[in-house]
Amino acid sequence: MDGEGNKKPWDASQLRKYDLTFDEIPRLHYKDPKIDEYIRANKPVVIIESNIIKPALQRWTLEYLEKNLGQTGHTCFVSKNHQFKYYDDKKIYDKTNNTKGVEFTPPTKKVEMRIEDFMKRVKEWKKGDDRIYLQQSLTTSVGNNIVEDFVKFDWDYVNGKQAKHNWGPLTSNLLFIAMEGNQTPCHYDEQENFFAQVQGYKRCILFPPSQFECLYPYPVHHPHDRQSMVDFEHPDNAKFPKFKDAKGCEAIVGPGDVLYIPIYWWHHIESLMRGGPTTTVNFWYKGGPSTLEYPLKDHQKVAISRNVEKMLLEVLQDPKEVGPLLSAMVLGRYTE
Amino acid sequence: MDGEGNKKPWDASQLRKYDLTFDEIPRLHYKDPKIDEYIRANKPVVIIESNIIKPALQRWTLEYLEKNLGQTGHTCFVSKNHQFKYYDDKKIYDKTNNTKGVEFTPPTKKVEMRIEDFMKRVKEWKKGDDRIYLQQSLTTSVGNNIVEDFVKFDWDYVNGKQAKHNWGPLTSNLLFIAMEGNQTPCHYDEQENFFAQVQGYKRCILFPPSQFECLYPYPVHHPHDRQSMVDFEHPDNAKFPKFKDAKGCEAIVGPGDVLYIPIYWWHHIESLMRGGPTTTVNFWYKGGPSTLEYPLKDHQKVAISRNVEKMLLEVLQDPKEVGPLLSAMVLGRYTE
Ligand SMILES: [Zn+2]
Ligand SMILES: [Zn+2]
Repeated sequence: MDGEGNKKPWDASQLRKYDLTFDEIPRLHYKDPKIDEYIRANKPVVIIESNIIKPALQRWTLEYLEKNLGQTGHTCFVSKNHQFKYYDDKKIYDKTNNTKGVEFTPPTKKVEMRIEDFMKRVKEWKKGDDRIYLQQSLTTSVGNNIVEDFVKFDWDYVNGKQAKHNWGPLTSNLLFIAMEGNQTPCHYDEQENFFAQVQGYKRCILFPPSQFECLYPYPVHHPHDRQSMVDFEHPDNAKFPKFKDAKGCEAIVGPGDVLYIPIYWWHHIESLMRGGPTTTVNFWYKGGPSTLEYPLKDHQKVAISRNVEKMLLEVLQDPKEVGPLLSAMVLGRYTE
Repeated sequence: MDGEGNKKPWDASQLRKYDLTFDEIPRLHYKDPKIDEYIRANKPVVIIESNIIKPALQRWTLEYLEKNLGQTGHTCFVSKNHQFKYYDDKKIYDKTNNTKGVEFTPPTKKVEMRIEDFMKRVKEWKKGDDRIYLQQSLTTSVGNNIVEDFVKFDWDYVNGKQAKHNWGPLTSNLLFIAMEGNQTPCHYDEQENFFAQVQGYKRCILFPPSQFECLYPYPVHHPHDRQSMVDFEHPDNAKFPKFKDAKGCEAIVGPGDVLYIPIYWWHHIESLMRGGPTTTVNFWYKGGPSTLEYPLKDHQKVAISRNVEKMLLEVLQDPKEVGPLLSAMVLGRYTE
């Protein structure tokens, strides 16, 4: 669908500039058996020319989505800038309920919006306006046509991968509609992900779990859990000295491309600048049963670290006490 | 027994010089009800004029011990210098058994020695010789007279404290016979301790569990677990910058004094220089049931840290991996 010759439907000026360089994620035909080698090795790969989301590719224009997504409200986020950094409501300190949590001002606002209103705001957007990003589950409250398209996805193919690689159950399919230039800052998820591009182009920068130290995730109890504390556009090298050493890879995915984002892999995703709105569908699967075979995989070490932080919060009860205890455990004892 | 006027049977020149200053641990008459306030608050106190080890005080001269301690071998440690730093055999890497452990050369040698041989070496010791330290359980293989004296200790008094403060069972009574100048470097134990001085004078420097960060204990999986990495006589201020801020207290205990060393309190103990050999008996009790009442006590936080380190070793299987994982968890994330 894309490569007529080498002409790309985008150019480098549409990519934000970062101080890192990236390897390219390989692109493999969906029947290529090497895809399974990548998945088995927990490495990202772009699956091309598959029918995974073919009905969406054929029909899900913005107009079609506006007509068919359904008349209920859909989940959208509003941001003052181009960044849409995820946060977990449940980890925010709540005065009225006197819950334990972190004092926190959300960087984006979650709103329920009718699809017409969303589309109107996207079309009429001009520089300086708040930005908007739709992130709606495809399995709850969407219209019949969308559901019909959805059931015609190539489930044999994706379920085949799930079975072959011993993943857990499919947990959700989200539909993302982004404005050009929208950015989802670097984070990792605790699920396997097929990230299927419907419309427009997204740049996906990925880092393996081994880059934990270079990417400085927020504490697990923080609302920005799983997100990097580093602002890629203005990295604070004094606070995050190892960021400059982060080793990542990237792919620019267009219509029909399906990026496999392995569980616990960091990903920083942005819709190309001046490329129009983008539409993506993802497939999230729970990870496989974790058998502790040695040596442990890097993502298992991340999972272990997360559990340590969670247990400490559980026993200490106060998020403010986790850091001092961990620091006391490490500084001068396990550091040089 | 000691204070005729203020004349002390030792002088400051018998104490090693350290860069720290210490508060004095209070000395209270054994009937003073304030003793229970100290114990309840997990604070050290010297109990004076008690009958706790009266039979030993009356009879356990070196000659008596030589005659009555028993003809089997007794556990002694041999050191090239004045320091007798404890280590845990089970945490040493063992080539032949291919066990997981730390490569480690023990700083002292554990030997079984007949009491006459021990006493002879103590008497004939001259500068440059190896030093020696007897540390023998009083409840296994000691002679009848010693056992008779032992059962006449004031068990009502110590068991009364045990009951009142809800301690666990008595786990052991060790007899220590040290050469003058012998030092047990700073460490903590996971038990409550009555440290009863029989003969000679020992300087006991204690630090509360809150001083963990200033004292830099070895990793839990290291054979020197629970010992401070800091050499008090030559502190490495670059590696252990907070040591100079350690807040401690001290007591010089002589015959009849019983020092309460609370569970998890650090203690650095040395027989005074040019003071002759010293004899001590300790009473180790398991801690009370740990009810997690908030705010947690400092020693409970130490116990939590220990458990984190142990679980990490358990899951990572390799002691060399504990430090890097903890560092990755902390540096730049929980540190400034
Ligand atoms: Zn994600
Ligand atoms: Zn001790």
